[in-house]
Amino acid sequence: MIPMEAAVRGEGGAGKVNFSAPRNFSTVFKSDLKETLFPDDPFHDFKGKTLPEKAKKSVKYFVPIFQWLPSYTTKLFMYDLLAGVTIASLAIPQGISYAKLANIPPVIGLYSSFVPPLIYAVFGNSKHLAVGTVASSSLIIAGAIEKRVHEADDPQLYLNLILTATLISGLIQLILGVFRLGILVDFLSHSTITGFMGGTAIIICLQQLKGIFGLKHFTTHTDVVSVTKAIFKNKHEIRWECTLVGIIFLIFLHLAKMVKQRKPKLFWVSAIAPMVVVAVGCIFAYAANAEKYGIAIVGPLKKGINPPSLKNLDFDPKYISAPIEAGVITAFVALAEGIAIGRSFALMANQQIDGNKEMIAFGLMNIVGSLTSCYITTGPFSKTAVNYNAGCKTQMANVVMSVCMLLTLFFLAPLFSYTPLVALSAIIMSAMLGLIEYDKAYHLYKTDKFDFLICMAAFLGVAFISMDVGLMLSVGLALVRALLYVARPASSKLGNIPDTSLYRDVEQYPGAINIPKTLVLQLGSPIYFANSSYIRERILRWVRDEQANKDSQDDVEYVLLDLGGVTSIDITGVETLIEIRRSLEVKEIKVVIVNPRLEVMEKLIVTDFVDKIGKDSIFLSIKDAIEGCKFSLAQ
Amino acid sequence: MIPMEAAVRGEGGAGKVNFSAPRNFSTVFKSDLKETLFPDDPFHDFKGKTLPEKAKKSVKYFVPIFQWLPSYTTKLFMYDLLAGVTIASLAIPQGISYAKLANIPPVIGLYSSFVPPLIYAVFGNSKHLAVGTVASSSLIIAGAIEKRVHEADDPQLYLNLILTATLISGLIQLILGVFRLGILVDFLSHSTITGFMGGTAIIICLQQLKGIFGLKHFTTHTDVVSVTKAIFKNKHEIRWECTLVGIIFLIFLHLAKMVKQRKPKLFWVSAIAPMVVVAVGCIFAYAANAEKYGIAIVGPLKKGINPPSLKNLDFDPKYISAPIEAGVITAFVALAEGIAIGRSFALMANQQIDGNKEMIAFGLMNIVGSLTSCYITTGPFSKTAVNYNAGCKTQMANVVMSVCMLLTLFFLAPLFSYTPLVALSAIIMSAMLGLIEYDKAYHLYKTDKFDFLICMAAFLGVAFISMDVGLMLSVGLALVRALLYVARPASSKLGNIPDTSLYRDVEQYPGAINIPKTLVLQLGSPIYFANSSYIRERILRWVRDEQANKDSQDDVEYVLLDLGGVTSIDITGVETLIEIRRSLEVKEIKVVIVNPRLEVMEKLIVTDFVDKIGKDSIFLSIKDAIEGCKFSLAQ
Repeated sequence: MIPMEAAVRGEGGAGKVNFSAPRNFSTVFKSDLKETLFPDDPFHDFKGKTLPEKAKKSVKYFVPIFQWLPSYTTKLFMYDLLAGVTIASLAIPQGISYAKLANIPPVIGLYSSFVPPLIYAVFGNSKHLAVGTVASSSLIIAGAIEKRVHEADDPQLYLNLILTATLISGLIQLILGVFRLGILVDFLSHSTITGFMGGTAIIICLQQLKGIFGLKHFTTHTDVVSVTKAIFKNKHEIRWECTLVGIIFLIFLHLAKMVKQRKPKLFWVSAIAPMVVVAVGCIFAYAANAEKYGIAIVGPLKKGINPPSLKNLDFDPKYISAPIEAGVITAFVALAEGIAIGRSFALMANQQIDGNKEMIAFGLMNIVGSLTSCYITTGPFSKTAVNYNAGCKTQMANVVMSVCMLLTLFFLAPLFSYTPLVALSAIIMSAMLGLIEYDKAYHLYKTDKFDFLICMAAFLGVAFISMDVGLMLSVGLALVRALLYVARPASSKLGNIPDTSLYRDVEQYPGAINIPKTLVLQLGSPIYFANSSYIRERILRWVRDEQANKDSQDDVEYVLLDLGGVTSIDITGVETLIEIRRSLEVKEIKVVIVNPRLEVMEKLIVTDFVDKIGKDSIFLSIKDAIEGCKFSLAQ
Repeated sequence: MIPMEAAVRGEGGAGKVNFSAPRNFSTVFKSDLKETLFPDDPFHDFKGKTLPEKAKKSVKYFVPIFQWLPSYTTKLFMYDLLAGVTIASLAIPQGISYAKLANIPPVIGLYSSFVPPLIYAVFGNSKHLAVGTVASSSLIIAGAIEKRVHEADDPQLYLNLILTATLISGLIQLILGVFRLGILVDFLSHSTITGFMGGTAIIICLQQLKGIFGLKHFTTHTDVVSVTKAIFKNKHEIRWECTLVGIIFLIFLHLAKMVKQRKPKLFWVSAIAPMVVVAVGCIFAYAANAEKYGIAIVGPLKKGINPPSLKNLDFDPKYISAPIEAGVITAFVALAEGIAIGRSFALMANQQIDGNKEMIAFGLMNIVGSLTSCYITTGPFSKTAVNYNAGCKTQMANVVMSVCMLLTLFFLAPLFSYTPLVALSAIIMSAMLGLIEYDKAYHLYKTDKFDFLICMAAFLGVAFISMDVGLMLSVGLALVRALLYVARPASSKLGNIPDTSLYRDVEQYPGAINIPKTLVLQLGSPIYFANSSYIRERILRWVRDEQANKDSQDDVEYVLLDLGGVTSIDITGVETLIEIRRSLEVKEIKVVIVNPRLEVMEKLIVTDFVDKIGKDSIFLSIKDAIEGCKFSLAQ
């Protein structure tokens, strides 16, 4: 077999290297764009469909409610009803307390659990996410607006700017989603999420100690140190009655969970437990006049649903910079938190989340929210965890919560007003404690130290600094690793596995034998600017080591570069191949290329590399290349 | 051949998959660390050497002067002498003008071209880099110190803080170098550098228009818009005499270059031209009393060399934040500029630059500089370009420049004081114009649109905003691409090339034939968090498309994943493989792994993936795997 002749013919037939002309730019660009933005190929079965069918499918794709509602059953609804009622009972105290964090009227917090969940139920992607206000965004939005207008000076203007910031935040989230920047979510790894969940569970548990101990004064910080300090500082306020009730509730919830673990058939015991705690708590608080003993209750609530707030939006150039700043920051923080949490629970339930659709859903719910007296909402961890634990099955749980909020706002306020805060704290803590995955962290430690580091960065960052810093630290570390992978790709020397035509890494397969006068190197990963100088160094080092190797009697005459594992190459990469060839030519070593893949071959042709090196220096397989070299040696 | 039995045996022999225990953590960590930080393996021939020999080699490695000085010849010196004298004649006006930018006495600018070049000559890595002060760092250092202390209020304190900032800057650069963070430099691609050089050449040319037009007032901004505005604003100051002289000099320099291009033997004409321009300029200015006609000269200079400045360093906690800020920012800006420039010229001369050694050299020269009345120095583009064009061969040119500066400071000041500024402007402009590589940019446009975009970001960013912004924009874009590569790795369906045992991409080789009931997929690049959900989607899509394909009569029963091109995998990646297997099992499709490389196999073993999937589902080659599948189909 004389591969040179075969190769020179340059046809894409069997056994020959395909040197046909590269695809044009627009074809490659379209294909790349599709892979980048629509990897799930949502329109794959559009071919041959009529226009109305296409429209129907598109609507189904972009509005998830049309996917799950048609097959929705009464049985599923029973689960969602239970979960929805449970999270509604959480939404009231959370709404009130986070609204206080943002210095706005408590009722705004309640409004924010009525409209946005309805929007999310229509456009949302995650089956477990419960919509509501969160501590981090509440703090950030207040901080940014306070820079320009103090709440005490002009409460109405302050509230208007908060609503304006919410609108801006929603618009940004919508735009990110429409431009399909959900790819950003791919950079949240399992390790990051494990650490992030663990850290968040810890800080939310600590926050609940306020309720468990019945403290009146606490801190607005979330980190472990501040919270611990706050508890010690206010330890004279601890009410043993309250703590006792809290511990009883916790034990009850834990026992309910154990029942579920022991006898999976009795799973409903665990699911109904939070509602039981709320009901028992209400009755107990009403009957025992619990407030006297320092067991705080939710308290009376203003009646009536969300008033429209279009007129409240304020774009006065004098103040606009503050809501813009607040909007931009909270848009990202709320997205990162909401999507990370949605993804976490999706992972646990072995489902998938499309980051783009989530962004659109969050965007729409904040835009509509800002027009109906709601401030920034996302998927809070505690609520979502309770929702998941209460056994929610679909986005319907949000609708149930929303209806509950409607009823609450109209009629039930007096009933829920007796819920002891300690009961809510116990429900949240119980949900959190199940989410710290010690065994998974240990598994990471055993199998991949860098992944463990990424996980710990999220865990410790969230626990000791803040949620956003923890997340950024961890994602930053993960990106550094991604870039290191790219900057230092593995390469290996191949040898022939006896009695076969296979060539494998000699380190991995010590039985593989060297080919005389020839060094076969396998390169991996893309070759481009970030690693090209490393690859050049490394290849020259392989050659130097090979020449210093006393086992091989002959000098190296051929270097075969197996590019089968190289998925792409850029200009710097091609130039590096040329440089390598030039450097080795000086040492009278010939460089031969084996099996470049489609994208690489295109780039080699378009940069005239193929013409420079000659088509007779490019082979389809290592075997062909070695035979080709032998042939030219014999000449 | 029954590969299952062979595989189960688990020995690293011929034809069998090697399942031997993974290397332990410290071995892998050491090897990774070495590849990351010492890719050039500087200590490779240390084995068996005695301690003194080792020490000698280490010194040679870390102090480059010991590498080039022993083989230095008189012939080389003649080139370096010429280049050194030429750049010395540039160092005087540049030193003065940049010192003025930083609001410090002009003589500090001259001192800064005496000590630092000597240090660089010993520790520096680039043969072409000419050391000196630069506009960007001068502006940044002044801006940061001015925030705390105004030069007008306390000139001595201001100067002391500038020197302190220089020391801090040097320390940071040294630390970066010692910890071998030169890997950062790998992220400057050829495309970035091409654009950066072009943009910088443009703005430096524009700066020289001040000298060419003989303007008295100008702008401290460097971008095209500001400079153009400044020229129009001050157009009444334009002196035609000065412009005429400038144009004559420019034409002379251009002709000299053309002589070199036409008759390469007469290269010395071009090399000596700048010196001729300076000499002619001096004589002309002296004889014609040129100042009368608006042709500005360098002017009188203070005599004496650098006084020590250890006592000037000021660590007063009251002010220290300003020099720390200035030091940190200038450390990075100066490094990026200096290394980018060093690397640019090394590329043109087909040489290599070790970023780590450059950082150490820059760090040492700034530390020593701060103790000898010098402020921040790096490798200025204009000086380096003139140095390169004047034919410098080694770092000796810096020593020559330094000696010239010494002589100038002591004796020659009166002589050089007659150099017309317009002559220096003409030399710099002439050097710059050769550095805009239109053809290379066009080549990028033709071959890789994204590389062209990266190049243009640097070019336009530098020209219209500033050097650091342009560089960051371009590097940022390049990183985004690197991450996209990583997030969306190519995968392809393989078919059998008739009459061979080769399996190749069916898109690239349309002649390749399908294997019945089997889908062979080749994955590339690392599999990990950033691309694992994409890979899962993509593989499921391949399977779906294959099943929808009417050409294949049978259903897919086996999916073969060829991991030969996968260089590494993380926990998320392994979990993704498990998920893929689970998803396909539901469809009664079996997943088989082919040829995992060393690092991947180790991770698969340590995460128990191999035990879960079974050793009989991992094969050494596609052929073996297909035979194995046939065997189990037959059963």
